[in-house]
Amino acid sequence: MIIIGIDPGTNITGYGIIKFSGGAFKRIDSGIIRLPSSKSIHKRLEIIYDELYKLLKKHKPDEFAIETAFYGKNVQSAMKIGYARGVSILAAVHCGISVSEYSPREVKKSVVGKGAASKQQVNYMIKNILELSDVKMKSDESDALAIAICHAFRLKRTKSVKNDWKTFIEAFPERVIS
Amino acid sequence: MIIIGIDPGTNITGYGIIKFSGGAFKRIDSGIIRLPSSKSIHKRLEIIYDELYKLLKKHKPDEFAIETAFYGKNVQSAMKIGYARGVSILAAVHCGISVSEYSPREVKKSVVGKGAASKQQVNYMIKNILELSDVKMKSDESDALAIAICHAFRLKRTKSVKNDWKTFIEAFPERVIS
Repeated sequence: MIIIGIDPGTNITGYGIIKFSGGAFKRIDSGIIRLPSSKSIHKRLEIIYDELYKLLKKHKPDEFAIETAFYGKNVQSAMKIGYARGVSILAAVHCGISVSEYSPREVKKSVVGKGAASKQQVNYMIKNILELSDVKMKSDESDALAIAICHAFRLKRTKSVKNDWKTFIEAFPERVIS
Repeated sequence: MIIIGIDPGTNITGYGIIKFSGGAFKRIDSGIIRLPSSKSIHKRLEIIYDELYKLLKKHKPDEFAIETAFYGKNVQSAMKIGYARGVSILAAVHCGISVSEYSPREVKKSVVGKGAASKQQVNYMIKNILELSDVKMKSDESDALAIAICHAFRLKRTKSVKNDWKTFIEAFPERVIS
């Protein structure tokens, strides 16, 4: 299964595409889309959509995961991030890919085990999980990979709960008809 | 000149298209795009973009005006409105139409003369300006028409300042070389 994670912003949008099979992770592609400050916000939204659309057509991910909540208090900043997230989600919907949203806390918890982990910790863990210790990457890129990995963990958990009878019986012993 | 005004939201998005020529206004089309609550927010963003894109291709407006600021305090609501605005702006950029943003205060001030005017006052004035007194319309629709009219007033003012030498000389008498 191929998963793309997106960390959208109007200055930098990070993306990370991973392959997740047999419990193992492999990075397929990752990077950042730089949105030049010389361009208007409107033009930047077009760049975000167009670049993501190209990535989705190229790598054909099965799942699209994006960071959603915003912990700041500035309403105008929230609105601007909303612009970037809106067009990112639209690119996925236009490509027929299902979208999942995660809060930064969920992402950090699933990758580092702690909802309040620092960006450096996330970066370190991502490199460990993907065996990329020598690769330099910006936090926007590692955050996007973290979102993709968080989604993989979630799918794995949901799948094991759904498909594994042993776990199910342990969880609901009263449902066994003897 | 044809102007489209947009009042974007994830429940209802209003639109209003007007023709502005020789100082007079005429409504070309207006209405609302209903976003069913049974659909996911992702699907609704697609509907907003696709419906606006169709309207832009049909009426070929020269200018696109949209409400921008948000006065509420709820960051999550601001984010959601940001989603809707982001995809609306993207539809305009994809059609090569220049985008202008206005705050609700600017719109109300330009149409009713008062930044704190009520929705009913805006509705009433819009019907007066466009000679539509017998037409029933929702506030989302009249707000969108108000945004288009606000933009027309702005263009008119900018144009008269730029092109009218009499006004310019009155404003900057020291620039006259005698």
